[in-house]
Formats: sequence, C-alpha cells, structure tokens
Amino acid sequence: MKKQVHGGDVYRFKNALDFSSNMNPLGTPDSVIRAARDSMEEICNYPDIQQEKLISGIASWEGVPEQWIICGNGAAEVIFTLVHALKPRTALLLAPTFAEYEQALAAENCQLRFHMLKEEKGFLPDEELLTDITEDTDILFLCNPNNPTGRLVEPSLMDRVLQRCGETGTFLVIDECFQDFIPDPARYTRKEDLNTNTGLFLLKAFTKRYAMAGLRLGYGLCSNRELLDRMHACVQPWNVSIPAQAAGVAALLEKEYLEQGREMVFRESAFLKKELRGLGFQVYDSMANYIFFRGPEGLVEKAWSFGVLIRDCSNYRGLGPGYYRVAVRKHQENRKLLKALGAEICAVDS
Amino acid sequence: MKKQVHGGDVYRFKNALDFSSNMNPLGTPDSVIRAARDSMEEICNYPDIQQEKLISGIASWEGVPEQWIICGNGAAEVIFTLVHALKPRTALLLAPTFAEYEQALAAENCQLRFHMLKEEKGFLPDEELLTDITEDTDILFLCNPNNPTGRLVEPSLMDRVLQRCGETGTFLVIDECFQDFIPDPARYTRKEDLNTNTGLFLLKAFTKRYAMAGLRLGYGLCSNRELLDRMHACVQPWNVSIPAQAAGVAALLEKEYLEQGREMVFRESAFLKKELRGLGFQVYDSMANYIFFRGPEGLVEKAWSFGVLIRDCSNYRGLGPGYYRVAVRKHQENRKLLKALGAEICAVDS
Repeated sequence: MKKQVHGGDVYRFKNALDFSSNMNPLGTPDSVIRAARDSMEEICNYPDIQQEKLISGIASWEGVPEQWIICGNGAAEVIFTLVHALKPRTALLLAPTFAEYEQALAAENCQLRFHMLKEEKGFLPDEELLTDITEDTDILFLCNPNNPTGRLVEPSLMDRVLQRCGETGTFLVIDECFQDFIPDPARYTRKEDLNTNTGLFLLKAFTKRYAMAGLRLGYGLCSNRELLDRMHACVQPWNVSIPAQAAGVAALLEKEYLEQGREMVFRESAFLKKELRGLGFQVYDSMANYIFFRGPEGLVEKAWSFGVLIRDCSNYRGLGPGYYRVAVRKHQENRKLLKALGAEICAVDS
Repeated sequence: MKKQVHGGDVYRFKNALDFSSNMNPLGTPDSVIRAARDSMEEICNYPDIQQEKLISGIASWEGVPEQWIICGNGAAEVIFTLVHALKPRTALLLAPTFAEYEQALAAENCQLRFHMLKEEKGFLPDEELLTDITEDTDILFLCNPNNPTGRLVEPSLMDRVLQRCGETGTFLVIDECFQDFIPDPARYTRKEDLNTNTGLFLLKAFTKRYAMAGLRLGYGLCSNRELLDRMHACVQPWNVSIPAQAAGVAALLEKEYLEQGREMVFRESAFLKKELRGLGFQVYDSMANYIFFRGPEGLVEKAWSFGVLIRDCSNYRGLGPGYYRVAVRKHQENRKLLKALGAEICAVDS
C-alpha cells in the first residue's frame, strides 16, 4: 500500500505547518473555492469532455491556440499520458529532479540515463548537459526551475538544448510549473518556440500558481496536434472533474492575487535564504517558491517537534541525507520555520 | 479536439432533461455535496495519496480487505490503469459493450477479438461465449449487467466463464458498476471468488450508485496485490482529488438513499418498459437502471425537440441506427421522456 514518499503528507503529520509542498503562499483564492463549491450542484452530470470553457480560458491566458492545449487531472497525469503516448525507448533525466518523470517512464519500460547535477556547481546544469543529449535519446525532461533545487537554466543554454534536441531528434519536455514564481517568466518560458517546434512540450499547473493541489488541474502546451490526439487516446475522456474545471476557469480571472503572491515569494525568499545561511546551512540559489539547502541530518525530526513539516530530499536520485527543501510561505510562518530549525528568532505568536 | 460521442453531454445540449447517462434517479445525496463542499477549505493541500479514510470506508462497505482495493479518478481511470499494468497482447470483448475497454486496450496496441452479441438472443451472452475464450485470450472484459443492453449473465454461466478463464489463463475483468441497481446483487457479484482467484478483477463506481459522475471516483477489487502495486506504478499518486475522497467517505454512510433509489429504479423500469413497448419499440430486458431498445431512426432528434436527451447507440460496435438507451429516472421525468418519444401520455407540468 505504501507509495513513494512525497511532500505534503498532512494526513499522517496532522496539523502540520506544511513547508514540504510548494504553493502560492497566499493560499487558494476565495473565488476559486467559491466556484468549485458552486459547481457541486452539477456533479450528478459527467464533466465536460470538451473542457470548453477551461480550454478557452487557458488559451486566452497563455496567448496560444486552443488546439495546442491538453488538460489533465493535475500536471502529473499529463506527464504520465505524454509518456504513455510517446512510448520512448530511451530517456535522459536530470538528477536530482521531480520523481514523476522517472515513474512515468518506468511504466513504459523506458531505458533511463541520468545527467547528474553537481553540488560543486550548485546543482545548476551547464553545457555538459549538451553532450549527454545523443542520437539515442528519445526524450529529455527538463524541469525549469528544477525541483527540488530551484535552479533555473538560462535562455542561452536552453537555446542550445533546443538546438541539440533538434539535431538528435530528441523530444523535449520543459516543465515550467514553477515559472509562475520566478522574477521574469517571459524571459524563460519557451512558448514562442512552440510555433516552429513540434518536438517541444511545455508543462503547466494550476496547483502551485493558485494553491489548489487538492483539486487536481494541470495542462500541457504543444503544437503537435497529432501527438495531443494520441494522448487523448491514452486517457479517459472525463479526466478533469467538474470542480476542477470550474475552479480553473475562475482562477484564470485572478490577476492581483498572482502578482501579490509573486511579490511575497521574492521578498520572503530573500529573507529565508539569508536566515538559513545564518544558521550555517549551505543554501543553493533557488529562483522558485521553495528553497533547497544542505544542513545537518535530523532536521526533519527537529522541525516536526515544533509541528513544522519540511521536505527530506534524501530519497531524490543523486542526493542523500542532509538535503532539504522548504516552501516559501508568509512572513510569520517563515519565522516559525526558522525557529523550528534553530534560529534565534522571535516567532510571533499567532 | 473531438472525442468519442458519449452520453451526458449537457454542455452542448444545454438545459437538457438528460436520459443519456445513467445515475441514481434520486440525484446526489445532500451529505455528499456537503462533504465535497466542506473539503474545499483543504484544497491547498495535495490529496491523501494513501486514501486512508476512503479505502477504510470501502473495505467496510464491501467486506473485503483494504489491500484488495484500488481507487481511481472514476472507474474509467481504473480500466486504463489496469490495462496499462497488464499490457495484454490479446483481448476478447463483447459487442456491443462499454467503449472504454476497447479504448484502453487500443492504447496498449492490444489485438482485439469480439464476441458479437446477437439480437435474436436479445443480446444476452450464452455458452457460445465460452468457445471464444481461448488459450490465446490474455484478457476478457465482461460488463454485468452489460452497457448499453442491461442484460445480466446468470451465475451458472458466469461460473463456467470463470472456470474457462482459469483453464486458458485468461485474466477476467467483471465490470459490476451497474449491479447496484439490479434486484439481487448478492447473487451476481463475484466478490467471493476473489478469495481464491488472483486472475479476477471487479470494477465498481461511485458515479452511478450516488449520482456523482462529475467528481470522478471509482474503484477496483482484486486479491492480486502484486498487480495492484504494478497499477500504482502506472498512475500518479494524487489521482483521487480531495473532494472526491471526502464525497466518497460521506457517500458510503448513505443506506436509505441507496435502497430508495433501487426501489425507484425497479418500479420505474417496469413502467418505462411497458410504455416503450406500447409505442411499438423492441425493448430488451434490461436489469439495470437504464433501458435499451430499438425503434425508428431519428428518435434522438425527436426527443431533443422536447428538450430530452437520449443516448443514440448507433456508434456502439455491433449496433447501428435505431438503437437507443434511456436512463430510468423519476416518474414525472419518465413521463416527459415518453411524451417526447410520442406516447399519448399526459406529462404532468412541473
């Protein structure tokens, strides 16, 4: 019955202050909760299999044609469906990175190779990645910014990755789920490349952007319509529930919320990095709404004794004991985290 | 963008009185809607990947061990995941039957054979089915009662199917999703066989039993734990949303609702069959909460001119124009259906 260890297990760690999963620190917008609640009157019906309103809303928000969009029961389902449809024989993955790429590829008996990110380079990919992209690499997953490290591949290197993948016939999946929380997403998203590149797939999620992980809603963007049709053939037609569709439509109307969440992340991320460094931890330069660091073993237990849940990263491929990831949350919550980790900081009562 | 035609498209057929999908005629229980609504406060969290409360509730309700249960984003996801994990080379399907078995098998490039059900036998499978189960049949799907026909395989024949599948090494999937609405489900479910048969898988759904298709929740029962673990490896860990888990837990506490829904189905099914026969249609003896019949072409359009949506079954493999399926609903709704189909019946205004 046991599944792999993930962050966010607030069911076994009851009443936790959860820093182990990474959401918009503002929490779910009221409008989203309201839309999902109101949709409950309709749940005797099947969900809209055309996902008409949702796809129309995403197309406007992203500025892409509707026929480039495929929605899923969370971005995780999109990953599994993509791999199922492509059935790659060989894949290249970063290590460490988000575990679901590997799980989805393993379900297709795909042969895996790993580009090991190096601690001495702060886990930032560099041009050595290019030499690992070979003619025998059917698919490459790049999480940008990467999870759990938060490190962001610069556009100049990504240009060369795209070029290299074109040369080797490697299908490139860029997971942009955490780009909502980097300072200049327009500089990093590869949406423009979709126009001319049918071997490129971008992953996006509502989960983090609108703090609605429990409803399950993610999507992919790809200009290869034939591939999206093959993906539809690999998944049930009712995969996105009525409340998820309703919540998604409402979420896309939120503008200020998103900007406020981003500003909070920028401010609090700087605060957390400084304080975590002050505790003597090796803090890597995450650009996402979470911070990756190395510290002494036993920090998870120490934090939990204060009711604070942090992500033990020792089970990521390429890492070991002593690596941790913490979400960037609201200021008072971040102070509680720091206190739980041993900082001489006056956590404000609340 | 077009997906296969299914029932229940209340999004293109707005304000329809929907007889094209088959739910408990009482509609979603208030307790279920309330539980799903209340759970919205928690959607900034990921769903429980252990699905602890839900699986515990199902185990009690079904009287099976927790480790025999696998939940999905609707029974449809369970079908896709099962086929993905088993990767059968060859499959035997009834025709007509529920379309998702074929779609899931096609996604694995499985070779399909069909046991064509015969109109002259009222589409009821008989012992001829046994001869189609060969050494070269990796998997057999039996929907019992069958969709769209509503015909129910008797236990004596099912005994022989189970025996034959044992002899040929054929994995048997029995879709029992509509057994909630047959008069004597205890006589027809094959739950007892799970104890000794690891080559048997039973499909169950909350969708129809509690009229909650829009939330997506279904499950499978199987005593082959190794297979269930392989299925878990083929699907994301967060596949069942927070509202679906909450609604499921609440639904399982409903007892009277279910009995009242069943009694309504028995009563109204008899009424509908009699009246549909009175219209001169060929009505097959469905034992489920829907009725399958043959009538003149053009009935879908005729019904829709009254705002009534019925299921055109012409796109089912093995059928053609003139076959229809209608749900069994509340009495006044059924009268409206009959009027829309041309009956000289006084539809009560409401």
